[in-house]
Amino acid sequence: MKAVGIVMGSDSDWAVMAEAAQVLEAFGIAYEVKISSAHRTLTRTLAWVGEFERQGGSVVIAAAGLAAHLPGVIAGATTLPVIGVPMRSGALDGLDALYSIVQMPPGVPVATVGIGGARNAGLLAIQMLALTTPSLRQKLAEYRKRMADEIEQKDEALRQKLATSSRDKRGCAAE
Amino acid sequence: MKAVGIVMGSDSDWAVMAEAAQVLEAFGIAYEVKISSAHRTLTRTLAWVGEFERQGGSVVIAAAGLAAHLPGVIAGATTLPVIGVPMRSGALDGLDALYSIVQMPPGVPVATVGIGGARNAGLLAIQMLALTTPSLRQKLAEYRKRMADEIEQKDEALRQKLATSSRDKRGCAAE
Amino acid sequence: MKAVGIVMGSDSDWAVMAEAAQVLEAFGIAYEVKISSAHRTLTRTLAWVGEFERQGGSVVIAAAGLAAHLPGVIAGATTLPVIGVPMRSGALDGLDALYSIVQMPPGVPVATVGIGGARNAGLLAIQMLALTTPSLRQKLAEYRKRMADEIEQKDEALRQKLATSSRDKRGCAAE
Amino acid sequence: MKAVGIVMGSDSDWAVMAEAAQVLEAFGIAYEVKISSAHRTLTRTLAWVGEFERQGGSVVIAAAGLAAHLPGVIAGATTLPVIGVPMRSGALDGLDALYSIVQMPPGVPVATVGIGGARNAGLLAIQMLALTTPSLRQKLAEYRKRMADEIEQKDEALRQKLATSSRDKRGCAAE
Amino acid sequence: MKAVGIVMGSDSDWAVMAEAAQVLEAFGIAYEVKISSAHRTLTRTLAWVGEFERQGGSVVIAAAGLAAHLPGVIAGATTLPVIGVPMRSGALDGLDALYSIVQMPPGVPVATVGIGGARNAGLLAIQMLALTTPSLRQKLAEYRKRMADEIEQKDEALRQKLATSSRDKRGCAAE
Amino acid sequence: MKAVGIVMGSDSDWAVMAEAAQVLEAFGIAYEVKISSAHRTLTRTLAWVGEFERQGGSVVIAAAGLAAHLPGVIAGATTLPVIGVPMRSGALDGLDALYSIVQMPPGVPVATVGIGGARNAGLLAIQMLALTTPSLRQKLAEYRKRMADEIEQKDEALRQKLATSSRDKRGCAAE
Amino acid sequence: MKAVGIVMGSDSDWAVMAEAAQVLEAFGIAYEVKISSAHRTLTRTLAWVGEFERQGGSVVIAAAGLAAHLPGVIAGATTLPVIGVPMRSGALDGLDALYSIVQMPPGVPVATVGIGGARNAGLLAIQMLALTTPSLRQKLAEYRKRMADEIEQKDEALRQKLATSSRDKRGCAAE
Amino acid sequence: MKAVGIVMGSDSDWAVMAEAAQVLEAFGIAYEVKISSAHRTLTRTLAWVGEFERQGGSVVIAAAGLAAHLPGVIAGATTLPVIGVPMRSGALDGLDALYSIVQMPPGVPVATVGIGGARNAGLLAIQMLALTTPSLRQKLAEYRKRMADEIEQKDEALRQKLATSSRDKRGCAAE
Repeated sequence: MKAVGIVMGSDSDWAVMAEAAQVLEAFGIAYEVKISSAHRTLTRTLAWVGEFERQGGSVVIAAAGLAAHLPGVIAGATTLPVIGVPMRSGALDGLDALYSIVQMPPGVPVATVGIGGARNAGLLAIQMLALTTPSLRQKLAEYRKRMADEIEQKDEALRQKLATSSRDKRGCAAE
Repeated sequence: MKAVGIVMGSDSDWAVMAEAAQVLEAFGIAYEVKISSAHRTLTRTLAWVGEFERQGGSVVIAAAGLAAHLPGVIAGATTLPVIGVPMRSGALDGLDALYSIVQMPPGVPVATVGIGGARNAGLLAIQMLALTTPSLRQKLAEYRKRMADEIEQKDEALRQKLATSSRDKRGCAAE
Repeated sequence: MKAVGIVMGSDSDWAVMAEAAQVLEAFGIAYEVKISSAHRTLTRTLAWVGEFERQGGSVVIAAAGLAAHLPGVIAGATTLPVIGVPMRSGALDGLDALYSIVQMPPGVPVATVGIGGARNAGLLAIQMLALTTPSLRQKLAEYRKRMADEIEQKDEALRQKLATSSRDKRGCAAE
Repeated sequence: MKAVGIVMGSDSDWAVMAEAAQVLEAFGIAYEVKISSAHRTLTRTLAWVGEFERQGGSVVIAAAGLAAHLPGVIAGATTLPVIGVPMRSGALDGLDALYSIVQMPPGVPVATVGIGGARNAGLLAIQMLALTTPSLRQKLAEYRKRMADEIEQKDEALRQKLATSSRDKRGCAAE
Repeated sequence: MKAVGIVMGSDSDWAVMAEAAQVLEAFGIAYEVKISSAHRTLTRTLAWVGEFERQGGSVVIAAAGLAAHLPGVIAGATTLPVIGVPMRSGALDGLDALYSIVQMPPGVPVATVGIGGARNAGLLAIQMLALTTPSLRQKLAEYRKRMADEIEQKDEALRQKLATSSRDKRGCAAE
Repeated sequence: MKAVGIVMGSDSDWAVMAEAAQVLEAFGIAYEVKISSAHRTLTRTLAWVGEFERQGGSVVIAAAGLAAHLPGVIAGATTLPVIGVPMRSGALDGLDALYSIVQMPPGVPVATVGIGGARNAGLLAIQMLALTTPSLRQKLAEYRKRMADEIEQKDEALRQKLATSSRDKRGCAAE
Repeated sequence: MKAVGIVMGSDSDWAVMAEAAQVLEAFGIAYEVKISSAHRTLTRTLAWVGEFERQGGSVVIAAAGLAAHLPGVIAGATTLPVIGVPMRSGALDGLDALYSIVQMPPGVPVATVGIGGARNAGLLAIQMLALTTPSLRQKLAEYRKRMADEIEQKDEALRQKLATSSRDKRGCAAE
Repeated sequence: MKAVGIVMGSDSDWAVMAEAAQVLEAFGIAYEVKISSAHRTLTRTLAWVGEFERQGGSVVIAAAGLAAHLPGVIAGATTLPVIGVPMRSGALDGLDALYSIVQMPPGVPVATVGIGGARNAGLLAIQMLALTTPSLRQKLAEYRKRMADEIEQKDEALRQKLATSSRDKRGCAAE
């Protein structure tokens, strides 16, 4: 059983959506990947989500660009939580996809993340799964801690670089 | 057989979409009206459009607001021309609906009219039907002529009003 | 233990956010309500979310308008899933709040719903809770069915009204 | 007799609009191409569309960028259906062209496709022509099927690639 | 001979455009008013502007809303300066009209004023006419001076009001 | 005496604004160029425009990017017609400059052209100057004719190319 | 000596800007109010800001709508900190004013607050003045505390209301 | 004691924010640099700003992109003036950051500069510091003068270039 299904309208979306998969792998979450379209292969999309739900899947991540209907259509076909990822593409750079995903009518929500927010989609799926798997909660805390440590290291590195460059300048000035 | 199907996501859309129906009636075109949703009643929506096509329907007019998926989903389910009408609603006043309808991915077009453009949707349907029913072409020309005449009458009325008011002023000034 | 915490930046948000509470009540989900600000009472906000998490809360719904930092700040302070609701207010009508909530940097997601989407926030929370409480899944299916039935009834009502009005016209015309 | 006329404001539009022509060719539809401007050669534009209509043309595809008046002006000069293609150009990246084409006043519709949507414009023209030429309906269905098959193949290819890379990783891990 | 022609797509525009006429009257400039459409009465629009130019007219003010093609189409049909006024209407509140008017392609400029900027359109026409009629230059300077005086009076009035209210408060406080 | 003054906020604007100068040269109009800022050298800007007006200048073309105040400030300091050119720069790509120039308050118009519309600014200046110099009217008509001829040639060239390529294909097919 | 100068382009701005004055009064800061325009009374505006600076003024708050040049022009004429307040007015609801104020070119900053943010402008001025008057720092802390207390009271009030209504419901249910 | 603290959400912001540091150095203002996040290291961010304030810091410059909460969160945690710099990044090119920073709710202002406006942030900080250090006022005046001189030099250089090129052309023509 795969806990998370990642579905995309086009295989070109994979370049971005692989980030979601990497996050899931890092947390040890089984997932499956599906390319399917809300317009060109609607029946298969609906069949896939039905099968995913029947097999005990928990969360769907759906990515699409332009008039991005895939997340909303899937959300209408399942009561599992659906995370929508607006893809950056075309002349409007993903703003069309954002509006098409987040502005769902009352009754059928899509949990929308930022434009191109594949990594956040993966993390949000894990946060949901942690409701049933408390060990994930601990891993999320560690992940957060690593992020915080990275920032601290970058902060330290920048301060050092600036201190050095400042000493150099003073040294030069002193000569 | 109804030539045109008008489908809306919500019965509140009828207040605007009735304009499309009125245009169709004025041109003697049989139509049917359907309230159905791309998210809440997707199966029925697909069944309806399949049935509409089987019974010889020619053009679909689909109206929706917010993340307006109805026109696109129908366009993916039929090869009949689908006219999309973005409805003005919510905080973005229909801009979300416009983007959700017009920015369809390659392969599945929606013939989009302006925000709230129900009347134009009706006229566009008639222009398409005129490809098979030349008598409609003539009626369209008459409709255009009436519109032009109305503008001319309004032009005449405004010029008269201004001429009168101008004479009055001069009359007053002369006293 | 309350499963859901609804937190708002201002008590004026309650007029809208009560819809989220009503949905939760309809599904029998215990929730608590909190007014707190990311800027004016940040410490208390953080204390609240910490306490909420410790007491076994599962999902946070956070609503804010303008430069809406509340959902993101809470998302940074907990690993529970946080649902963000952009409120419609001010000159930009909620577009500022949408961007401020959905465009979170990598690492800290907020599950964003549409502008003013309180009802969808409630439903999304229930979809997440259903991961641990399968009976909710069934209730969600029933809720969806009721929505679908309502649309069908509205469809029926509109068709009847049109049929009647059409008969009346024909009747009149026949006289 | 050419069924479709493709008219553009500038020869630089051809790089994009050739996609519309390719679609028409793939469906065996005769078309003609015209470069003409709503502002610089209005008289010729009007003459061309009049001649196109007289010679039995059926559908006009009109592409323009910036303050894109060409589709609307042609729509005002004929009762044939006019498909408008907003071109991506200038500082606003086609948003100006989209608004200038889709927001037509009541009475004169333009069937608008997405920004740069040349391929969809060609397909929409074919959907309209299929109203009179039922064999096109069949070809459209085949075209849709090919698109669906392509998606399935891409889905298959991606799943295989992931399965292989996953096996490789497990293999490495096992060593 | 009328120096200025004010042309509008709809008689409803007159409510706003009358401000342009009032400015022209205040400067003693003869003008004519025309309701005509770029789409519904294009031929008459072109005939009118040709006639206006032949009779020695100098400046055209053209107002339109939505996909506002009127100013651009007129600008393409005359070498007289054309002032475009985007009208506030529809769901996009005039932003569509602004883009449709100001983003003219190279070769055919429209001198665009702000959304609903009828008064400024009138003043701009007078500034152009002052190139040939130096006495208008003097009147424009007086107009500017009156505007400046009005601001000074308002400044004075507000300061007085605040001083009084401040004295009152101090008086009350002293009691 | 220079008829036209071209003023820019930055010397980097010259790359674009040189197009305005070229148009003026092509029509034999004397112009001067000035780099000056509404914020950094306001006094000099005001002195320049005062001097330009005293020496008999007729039209100012003012270009600026970002919060583009230069055209409006100059328009407030002279009663000569001021043409504003929003420059494309910064994160908003000129949309900020467009709003900052076109949305002038009542009383002080700026004749705004499109973003980066230097060539149109030059042509608009000539259209204004033609009010006093009828020979320019004739030159403008010739310029328009040349533009129209260019379009016709491009149309001819494209049709030939397509005809050749079509013959080639048929030829190949026949072999 | 007045520490703060509040300057507005129009007396209609006072309805909003009075909030800035009230904040200043609450903190015991002397201020003066000035109506003056960047376009219609530029010389007086410059004279006023020069005089304000000479008399020892510390901070300028400048409010304007539409193409809001007043804050930027003042910022160019003084080295005192200038706080800009975009006013909500016209078809773009203050977005034009926001861009016109915040997007200042390098070298001349305006400290911009939100659209209609008069109260925040007053508070920002006090925060700046507190650099020289430490007692203001204390008052600001108290102001913040009052705001926090208000939120806590509102939180308390809402919780009570909900508890009561919940008891009532249970009471009713129990009967 | 450092007068100014420059805080950024990411070390990648330094490429831009170094401009603020350079300005401060040029004015002899001591500053410190901090990388810290409103979401990933909120506690440390709050600790840093508390320490900065305790040690006598005067002004905070805070830069962030996307849903840019850092400036607002810091502004809520101190009564020092906070200057916010929206960073250009992601699909919305900094517009999201601008809205997230400038549209702060009443009570907690952020002094916002333009997108990417690091240099202006530095200058604004100096303008605030000049309230307590009058010598800075003189340096600011000199800085302004240098900027004005640069513009004058560029103006001179461009005029010379044009004069030369014009003489060359005339020379060529004369031969």
